Amino acid sequence: MQKLEKLLERVIRRVNLNLRGQDFDAGPFLRPCVPLRKLSQFYAFYGVTGRHPLRFHFSASNLAGSYFLGKCRVDGSVLYKSDIRGDELRAKGDDFHFRGVRMTLDQDEIISISDSLLVKTLVHNRSHDPENPEIFLVKNSAACPFANIHGSPLEGSFLGAFATVDLTTLHGCIVGAFAYVQVGELWHDRVEPGQIWLNQEGAFDFRYRFPAETLAEYIRVEPGRPPAGRFMEFLNASKGDFRRVFDVVHLAPVRFVPKTASLSRYAVIKPKTRIGANVLVAQRAFIENSSLGKGSNAQENCFIINSHLEGNDVTAHGAKLIHARLAENVFVGFNSFIHGLPDAPVVVGPGSIIMPHTIIDVKEPVTIPPKHLVWGFVSTQKDLLDHSVPLATLATSTRMTTVGTMEFAGSGAQFVAAFQNRIDHILESNGAYFDGRKKRGHAQKGQNIAYNIIQPYPIGAQKGIYPTIDIQP
Amino acid sequence: MQKLEKLLERVIRRVNLNLRGQDFDAGPFLRPCVPLRKLSQFYAFYGVTGRHPLRFHFSASNLAGSYFLGKCRVDGSVLYKSDIRGDELRAKGDDFHFRGVRMTLDQDEIISISDSLLVKTLVHNRSHDPENPEIFLVKNSAACPFANIHGSPLEGSFLGAFATVDLTTLHGCIVGAFAYVQVGELWHDRVEPGQIWLNQEGAFDFRYRFPAETLAEYIRVEPGRPPAGRFMEFLNASKGDFRRVFDVVHLAPVRFVPKTASLSRYAVIKPKTRIGANVLVAQRAFIENSSLGKGSNAQENCFIINSHLEGNDVTAHGAKLIHARLAENVFVGFNSFIHGLPDAPVVVGPGSIIMPHTIIDVKEPVTIPPKHLVWGFVSTQKDLLDHSVPLATLATSTRMTTVGTMEFAGSGAQFVAAFQNRIDHILESNGAYFDGRKKRGHAQKGQNIAYNIIQPYPIGAQKGIYPTIDIQP
Repeated sequence: MQKLEKLLERVIRRVNLNLRGQDFDAGPFLRPCVPLRKLSQFYAFYGVTGRHPLRFHFSASNLAGSYFLGKCRVDGSVLYKSDIRGDELRAKGDDFHFRGVRMTLDQDEIISISDSLLVKTLVHNRSHDPENPEIFLVKNSAACPFANIHGSPLEGSFLGAFATVDLTTLHGCIVGAFAYVQVGELWHDRVEPGQIWLNQEGAFDFRYRFPAETLAEYIRVEPGRPPAGRFMEFLNASKGDFRRVFDVVHLAPVRFVPKTASLSRYAVIKPKTRIGANVLVAQRAFIENSSLGKGSNAQENCFIINSHLEGNDVTAHGAKLIHARLAENVFVGFNSFIHGLPDAPVVVGPGSIIMPHTIIDVKEPVTIPPKHLVWGFVSTQKDLLDHSVPLATLATSTRMTTVGTMEFAGSGAQFVAAFQNRIDHILESNGAYFDGRKKRGHAQKGQNIAYNIIQPYPIGAQKGIYPTIDIQP
Repeated sequence: MQKLEKLLERVIRRVNLNLRGQDFDAGPFLRPCVPLRKLSQFYAFYGVTGRHPLRFHFSASNLAGSYFLGKCRVDGSVLYKSDIRGDELRAKGDDFHFRGVRMTLDQDEIISISDSLLVKTLVHNRSHDPENPEIFLVKNSAACPFANIHGSPLEGSFLGAFATVDLTTLHGCIVGAFAYVQVGELWHDRVEPGQIWLNQEGAFDFRYRFPAETLAEYIRVEPGRPPAGRFMEFLNASKGDFRRVFDVVHLAPVRFVPKTASLSRYAVIKPKTRIGANVLVAQRAFIENSSLGKGSNAQENCFIINSHLEGNDVTAHGAKLIHARLAENVFVGFNSFIHGLPDAPVVVGPGSIIMPHTIIDVKEPVTIPPKHLVWGFVSTQKDLLDHSVPLATLATSTRMTTVGTMEFAGSGAQFVAAFQNRIDHILESNGAYFDGRKKRGHAQKGQNIAYNIIQPYPIGAQKGIYPTIDIQP
């Protein structure tokens, strides 16, 4: 165990050193989230599909409970129950376009994680960083439980619990709990807890911040303690179900799943669930008493309970739907929490966009009209007045607009178009549009996946460290 | 699948080419034993213990259902449900003594299997070949189900079903079904089915051959068909139990196992089994309604059913005991089959040696007296007259001795001493003599083992081929 403990402390020191300008100690936030004993008990697993470029390299690391797909390498890091999905990386010969400049990749892109500590964190998509298109780098960084690192290279940065960094390069930054940033690049900056911030240079800027008392009810972070609040209580309730799916090598396949859909065998699928064509359910998703219509998807750490998704609905990484009814083409962003009432589900009209990190936790029936953008905290129908806007209205905005405490500046048209393009890209890459022959996506490519299981040294000084492994085609 | 089929045919062609002098086609014996469909479904697994030198390298191979421990590499081969146990290999700096000459190894020994096809085969121990002490090589060779390759480097050789090659280097040899050889080295030779042959140059020579009609009842081999007969019928009956242990990652540990014993979690342990201190039960062993006294062991593919082992009893690889009662210090050799009656178990007296490949399948109560050597086929008490000899009597033999059809020449004392040394070595290396501090063996070293699971490409042209994997400490 000694080596594992040293590794953990070494990473914390490296992160702190990178954040020395901000006088920040990551240790008290990270240590309570990393149960040393479990780190040497859980296996890691990686998928071999025949459809994804294959390259895994692991050295001097602990990978307890983590999942890998596509090309990735991990050195000198602790990855606990994290998902490293290299299935949208660029390939050698692909073009990278940035502000009219085209670059052609001279080698396959790879996710490289070194000297970092990720806890229950998702790493997905491809590096958006034009400076290093061949490498999606996470270095000298740490992430607390349920953070998302989406297309975002990180150096010397710290992400709080449930934080999301989306298409944003971070150098020496601290991102607070449940904050969401999609701003291109940040240097030595600090993003406050519950801050939602989207910025595209020369195009638009969107800002909203959760009131501190609201945030505290859902996610509370104190040094020396694991994260607490309703999100954690909700997640802890399903631990037993996940233990079962991780303990068995070959699970009986769920019946009545269309051939064009794919359900990860590391997802929990409870009774009375209906799965439509082209549906994707990722590992660590949880579905119960719900129907997922054609082309819908449930990403990592999603929960869909007592809900109905009409079709082509996206529940992004970490989104949770309980008693919800989504019409077609609804987007629910990262880590959103939509909780209706048993006899009055939250109804979301077609084409609406629930912004990442939105909490809709209702005390009375709430209906979101078609083609609206919703953000922040909503518990009554009235709350929608200052937490939503029709997309058509937003698209006409060209200058500063405020709705409630939300501030929007720049081109609403570009903001709406960017979102809609992205949703379309997500549906396409997840295989929602597969016609039986063309437009194959993750739902189809992820079928026939074989999972390899790797274990750490079980005893001795190396206990918990994984042997050096190199895997190539 | 195309690549897997090509690999299989390529190996068969290479084996045939090496055996061209004997005008032999290995294909019709091998193909019926290799279910192509299963080759792409089963996982392979390797053990990481912290107590064994670690180095695995796999390339261009199929490893379906096979197990690996210690240092090994596999290239261009098909290993189906085989056990590659590199836990008795020599380490760098170890001495190798051969006829008074001492050699010191300048690197760790490694098991290297290339261009070969092994089906349900055991590879164990260390190379006994003084020419290449650093490499235990199996090359251009094939083995049918339940063959044992024990300390025996093979080049261009073919082993029939249930054949055992023990401490013998083979070059271009064919070893028939259920034949056992322990003769040092053979070139371009053919060993007939059911031939039991031990030879130590300048010391002794032991020969016995099973009558063809007896052999046919237990093991029948015809080109174009899988092996048949009572051995296969017996083994096929337990397939369901083994499927279960291979399907679950974490099995609940068997209770009441002493801390100094180890039961592989890939063994089948059925009810009413009692395990004593220092006991070793290897993967793919099957124990039911039996007691294994202190220091006893059950190796790979052993079956111990309705039996009692008093203590320090060895059941070597593939030995089967059904309704048997072993006193202390009994040795049951490779692939032996001891089958008593429900109300009259075969009783074996203390210190007796059941030769490898002995069949004791009784029609009436049979008791083997203490300190006897038993071989061949025994079904009545009277059969013992010409299939056994007191060890003390054999030890006085200095020239030619025949008992029944068994022929012994040379020094009986050396033969008995060699066997007893070896049994002692087996007990010692299995940990039978562990005193809580010293004399640690496999039973103690194999505890706290973590199993890594590797899978082949599940679809496409590479279907069934395993990615190239390199694992180091």
